[in-house]
Amino acid sequence: MDFSALYSYSALSLKSSKIRELFKLTKQKGLISMAGGMPDSQNLPFDIIKEIISKWDKTKSTQALQYGTTKGFPPLLEEIGTLMEKNKKISMDGQDILITTGSQQALSIISKVLLNRDEVVIVEIPSFIGAIASFYSYNAKVVGVEMDEEGLIPEKLESMIKRIKDEGRVVKFIYTIPNFNNPSGVTLSPRRRRALKEISDKYNIPIVEDDPYGDLFFEGKAEDYLPIKSIDIDGNVIYLGSFSKVLSPGMRVGWIVAQEDFIAKAELQKQSFDACTPLLSQVIAHDYLAGGYMTGFVEKMRNIYREKCNAMLEALQEYMPEGVRWTKPKGGLFVWVTMPDGITPEELFMESINEKVAFVTGDAFLPEDYPNRFIRLTYGDLPVERIREGVRRIAKALNKLLRV
Amino acid sequence: MDFSALYSYSALSLKSSKIRELFKLTKQKGLISMAGGMPDSQNLPFDIIKEIISKWDKTKSTQALQYGTTKGFPPLLEEIGTLMEKNKKISMDGQDILITTGSQQALSIISKVLLNRDEVVIVEIPSFIGAIASFYSYNAKVVGVEMDEEGLIPEKLESMIKRIKDEGRVVKFIYTIPNFNNPSGVTLSPRRRRALKEISDKYNIPIVEDDPYGDLFFEGKAEDYLPIKSIDIDGNVIYLGSFSKVLSPGMRVGWIVAQEDFIAKAELQKQSFDACTPLLSQVIAHDYLAGGYMTGFVEKMRNIYREKCNAMLEALQEYMPEGVRWTKPKGGLFVWVTMPDGITPEELFMESINEKVAFVTGDAFLPEDYPNRFIRLTYGDLPVERIREGVRRIAKALNKLLRV
Repeated sequence: MDFSALYSYSALSLKSSKIRELFKLTKQKGLISMAGGMPDSQNLPFDIIKEIISKWDKTKSTQALQYGTTKGFPPLLEEIGTLMEKNKKISMDGQDILITTGSQQALSIISKVLLNRDEVVIVEIPSFIGAIASFYSYNAKVVGVEMDEEGLIPEKLESMIKRIKDEGRVVKFIYTIPNFNNPSGVTLSPRRRRALKEISDKYNIPIVEDDPYGDLFFEGKAEDYLPIKSIDIDGNVIYLGSFSKVLSPGMRVGWIVAQEDFIAKAELQKQSFDACTPLLSQVIAHDYLAGGYMTGFVEKMRNIYREKCNAMLEALQEYMPEGVRWTKPKGGLFVWVTMPDGITPEELFMESINEKVAFVTGDAFLPEDYPNRFIRLTYGDLPVERIREGVRRIAKALNKLLRV
Repeated sequence: MDFSALYSYSALSLKSSKIRELFKLTKQKGLISMAGGMPDSQNLPFDIIKEIISKWDKTKSTQALQYGTTKGFPPLLEEIGTLMEKNKKISMDGQDILITTGSQQALSIISKVLLNRDEVVIVEIPSFIGAIASFYSYNAKVVGVEMDEEGLIPEKLESMIKRIKDEGRVVKFIYTIPNFNNPSGVTLSPRRRRALKEISDKYNIPIVEDDPYGDLFFEGKAEDYLPIKSIDIDGNVIYLGSFSKVLSPGMRVGWIVAQEDFIAKAELQKQSFDACTPLLSQVIAHDYLAGGYMTGFVEKMRNIYREKCNAMLEALQEYMPEGVRWTKPKGGLFVWVTMPDGITPEELFMESINEKVAFVTGDAFLPEDYPNRFIRLTYGDLPVERIREGVRRIAKALNKLLRV
């Protein structure tokens, strides 16, 4: 059958992502992949999960294997509510929670619930590829605002909003990853968080705050990374949390915290997306939280990622030629590297593949037509010595290109 | 924040479903719920799953907890391919598979990939609420074609297609649940399957074939329920399978079998929906298939559901007053009951709640504005004596109304 004549406008605009296409080149043996943003495989808490499951009685096993309500497994909703209030200082007053099949589903739900064709979403430059892809798939326009080492620049954000409004267009929401942004690793400063919230209030534009990495800081303390949602008294902020980096990505459990009426709408949308998030994953996530396992796991992972990140930063310092710049993350999984003049990320990628090392070129994380001078490196799932070796290989490829 | 001013057109059209609203009334103690289409809780194969997980080594545990590819866990794709060829007689030549987070996600993906605003989807009358909700959420028009005891009536389908085309509108696809339709329990006869396929070929309209219950027959043999996809040589048929009724709904694993280029498009769409279906569920589903557990489980469940269905049909025969009609399913989980003259499903529902028994009124399964004279009863998750007692209570409520 000729389906090409049958695809929707939305489907016609779907393109295979750069990451996907490049991924095929990274399958060769001995290649060091700094491409996928995966957490450390060696320390996924399988033993804890096995122990959790071994304790299930008939009732709990049935809950884990039967259908559940769209909103989420009620005891898990309870536990997350407590976590939000205690750890994230989010007041749940007038707010509610929806469990999602990973944060990616949360992004898709929010997109479908808020976006009409040609409405604008403002994102950080750079921003998460999965978010940008979701916004585009609902035919929105994605507009970027630049960051510096303190994160999104509020003055630039405000003038961007004014300009778009002057053109008679609608800014539907602002999307931010305030803690250890994927892909840049940059963190929004507390001062900037307040400024961003004020702009949201002033222009009546909601903030979608995506926070999958907030617990994975390796500098400072938890209070330094409290979400914007913790200072939100008007309900402007739609907060996204995830178990992918503090338990397991393969379980696909995330959540949205937002004003009650918004959650009710999001829940209706989720119903036709997948009826409910896998109960098996939800019941495990519940027992993991209720059993107090998360705290210890997160503390362990902070030390592991600190060591890995330091290894990467040291190797960049040691091996990279002049003219290359990179971010210094205080947490998370990513470092964002700016190319020296005259070098394109694409040519570095191809040369790096020859050297058996891979990463993602920056264009995937930028709004369409924004000039790309960047690559994203990840260290989450590599041992320290492979991180050093990977950076050395990229530097070698870069030096080769610079000499040409 | 006032979100009501911010919702997309799609979100504004989302309404809380009848099932959801009525569900709140069914929480009282001692109530027999024949509402939710849940499989038998008492026989969910938790022991098998526990045994499967206990055997996982480091590699497999990591696969189950880490991110996976959007398309699905490769060994599971392999197993499903074999299952499709062996059990369902589907030729995989030129066809491909995408794992989905339950069949509900498959419906949402297909809707987003194929439907533009106001395009028409033709469904059976009645049809699955989750499918209808998905089509509406993409602003499609849902048009129904009547069934008789052999299923969808081909002549009515063809004249409907002609009429819609004459009006200059587009029929994007035909949605059918050929085996033990939810909610009616009716099965499309082999003759009608061929007729439906011929109409699809003639008018170049794809068939979306939803088959979650096909293995749960309790009359006849597997060959009687082979999917339309098994006679599809042109790739017109998009086939949906699911583990929800042959393993566990709480694991949320379904799949699409369709022409390769369609699967490639669907995979791109799935990527922004939830990145990947939970690997934990996928690895379990793989081991369940590869370990040969499904055959025995399905055989056991056929006997259990046969007994339950018979109990319901006998009780209907014994207790229902004259003028009530119902379907006689050969498999699956549902019986569809037509009200006698002068009784509305809504008043019977309210009276039944007083008698402590619940079901779903038929309107949820009908296109908008189609007159409803039906209720759906399920027996999947009730013991035989509760099935009898539930039907007795509904009959009592009905007799009360008839006497007024």
